[in-house]
Amino acid sequence: MSVFNVELKKVVDDSYEIEVGFELEHKLIEDIQNGLVGKLHKFAVITDSIVKDLYGSRIHNLLLEAGYQADLFVFEAGETSKTRKTKEEIEDAMLAKGYRRDCCIIAVGGGVVTDLAGFVAGTYGRGIPFINYATTLLAAADASVGGKTAVDTPLATNLIGLFNQPEKVYLDIATWKTLPRRQVASGMAETIKHAMLADREFFRYLDAHMEEIMAIEKEACEHIAQVNCKVKYQVVMKDERESGLREILNLGHTVGRAIETVSDYRLLHGEAVSIGLVAEANLALKLGYITEEERDAVAALLQKAELPTAIPDYIDREALVKKLYTDKKVRDGKLRFVIQKGIGDIVEFEPGVFATPIEESVAREIIMQM
Amino acid sequence: MSVFNVELKKVVDDSYEIEVGFELEHKLIEDIQNGLVGKLHKFAVITDSIVKDLYGSRIHNLLLEAGYQADLFVFEAGETSKTRKTKEEIEDAMLAKGYRRDCCIIAVGGGVVTDLAGFVAGTYGRGIPFINYATTLLAAADASVGGKTAVDTPLATNLIGLFNQPEKVYLDIATWKTLPRRQVASGMAETIKHAMLADREFFRYLDAHMEEIMAIEKEACEHIAQVNCKVKYQVVMKDERESGLREILNLGHTVGRAIETVSDYRLLHGEAVSIGLVAEANLALKLGYITEEERDAVAALLQKAELPTAIPDYIDREALVKKLYTDKKVRDGKLRFVIQKGIGDIVEFEPGVFATPIEESVAREIIMQM
Repeated sequence: MSVFNVELKKVVDDSYEIEVGFELEHKLIEDIQNGLVGKLHKFAVITDSIVKDLYGSRIHNLLLEAGYQADLFVFEAGETSKTRKTKEEIEDAMLAKGYRRDCCIIAVGGGVVTDLAGFVAGTYGRGIPFINYATTLLAAADASVGGKTAVDTPLATNLIGLFNQPEKVYLDIATWKTLPRRQVASGMAETIKHAMLADREFFRYLDAHMEEIMAIEKEACEHIAQVNCKVKYQVVMKDERESGLREILNLGHTVGRAIETVSDYRLLHGEAVSIGLVAEANLALKLGYITEEERDAVAALLQKAELPTAIPDYIDREALVKKLYTDKKVRDGKLRFVIQKGIGDIVEFEPGVFATPIEESVAREIIMQM
Repeated sequence: MSVFNVELKKVVDDSYEIEVGFELEHKLIEDIQNGLVGKLHKFAVITDSIVKDLYGSRIHNLLLEAGYQADLFVFEAGETSKTRKTKEEIEDAMLAKGYRRDCCIIAVGGGVVTDLAGFVAGTYGRGIPFINYATTLLAAADASVGGKTAVDTPLATNLIGLFNQPEKVYLDIATWKTLPRRQVASGMAETIKHAMLADREFFRYLDAHMEEIMAIEKEACEHIAQVNCKVKYQVVMKDERESGLREILNLGHTVGRAIETVSDYRLLHGEAVSIGLVAEANLALKLGYITEEERDAVAALLQKAELPTAIPDYIDREALVKKLYTDKKVRDGKLRFVIQKGIGDIVEFEPGVFATPIEESVAREIIMQM
């Protein structure tokens, strides 16, 4: 018996830039010409059936005009496309067009596109570079930092995937103007969550500028895109493998995801999260970590962003409680919640522990009152 | 317009041990009990339909006896199972059994099992740990160092996958006794290749001990397993992303893979590589990098390992040349070959360049003479 040691310690630098601005298509081409991805000259532009006509084709054409080889790979828009099957179809289409390892993927779209395309890039030829051109507020708030890519399966959401960092992210705010207003509002839920858990100053800014933001005014939107990146970065960088701190990003999501499911997806993700944020603010109030005024300020800001703050009548409260407490994360009849501390902070229960177990009866009381 | 920098520079340590020995099942359990994968207590044992009865069930039972949670996930043996579909079936089976992120995969089998299971581990829950329990000589020579995992698709071999390092590799030499003799011989081709390209001393050792090796005698087999790891490690570590040096591992494979295809897989991979090694030794002789005696020594050693050294009669030589020169790697009518320099070394044509372009007429001449 003998042992051979494979020494594999090394420094890895996955750093990248997020560029925030208005109409960044030409900047993207310029960056590529200036060596963003080295000498690669073959680009697979991955987008969905809606974003294709808005931005995908435009970027594809700009690449061709600049003398690059490029093809468009389009899948049906919607969360239901975020599957292993779609990944396989994109891979086969890329292989059929002769794409090998010497190419780069450009994801043009919202979170579904960047999640899926980033995953394709991670396993194509055992890893090729990719660039995210994000066209939604939600992608700006959520998908641009953290490196999470994944697909859904019948039995689990986002469970098959990779941590994979892009070469660069473009947050093109001009694209938000083409979003339906309900989608803009839905995207704002994650932004407000970021303010609630990490930045009281930002909370005040949102309160003062919500009208400009909802009208997609350039300056205000650039500011919120930047702060979203900053908050997400600070949380995620301190905890890349999701062991502790990253959990705080679940604020509003424990109740929110359950509402989203029980509503049978009549509520958008952000709408469900908005209600979840209020429910969990009520919990923080009950536990004595925020004041009534702070709870009211949270609800008021969400309403300014045209988000719902009450559980809709068509949702059966008892079914919601049941959904929460049959979750696979329930231990000894308790479910762990992240709790906000005032506005702009989170309760750290023990060093490195950012959630506390809550009994079903307590959660029921909160939900019945909403 | 503004830029946000995501700083992601860090030290990553993927080091691991390869344990070489006889009947290592109990050592595996002991290592797990001693914290090889931390406190994880849930194990997905992935194996194929042949290895299951030989070793998979045994390891599964040992885990259960030791008080761990464990399940067996079995797929049909053979290269044709190395697909995205099999990966998906394993994932769904693991999800159905309640496996989430807090588990570890144990791959028990040859290269197909370790390639597939390592890929599953890399994307399950965005990455869970895995352990390789390798049961073939080929896995010892080839699959235990380098971190390559992948599946095949209709249009490409090994193109969809990941670089993913195991927690530990076990090379159980006792398992080689259950391999058909033709498989042992086939596995020897990669071992002899390693000697040819990197270690003249090892070449002499193989020549002196081939009989013991083919009879799976413990000491000789442990030695070759160790040297295989060492050679592979030295080559791969110097060139983790396959830019230059790693190319030397293609010795014998340029012709070998073409023969394998043209034979319609009547030849095993190692058998085709063996013929390829002789063909490429003839090329090295023609180019003046080895002597006739050295070429003969290569052929003689391969024959000692019961490997073919001539192109079988049923193979159409012209079809073989055509296959080689319609390869996607052909540039300006030339195909690049790695060339051995004497025995135990490789020609470095320029700094970092380990292959040289060869014209079709030269390759044809070599092949027609075999």
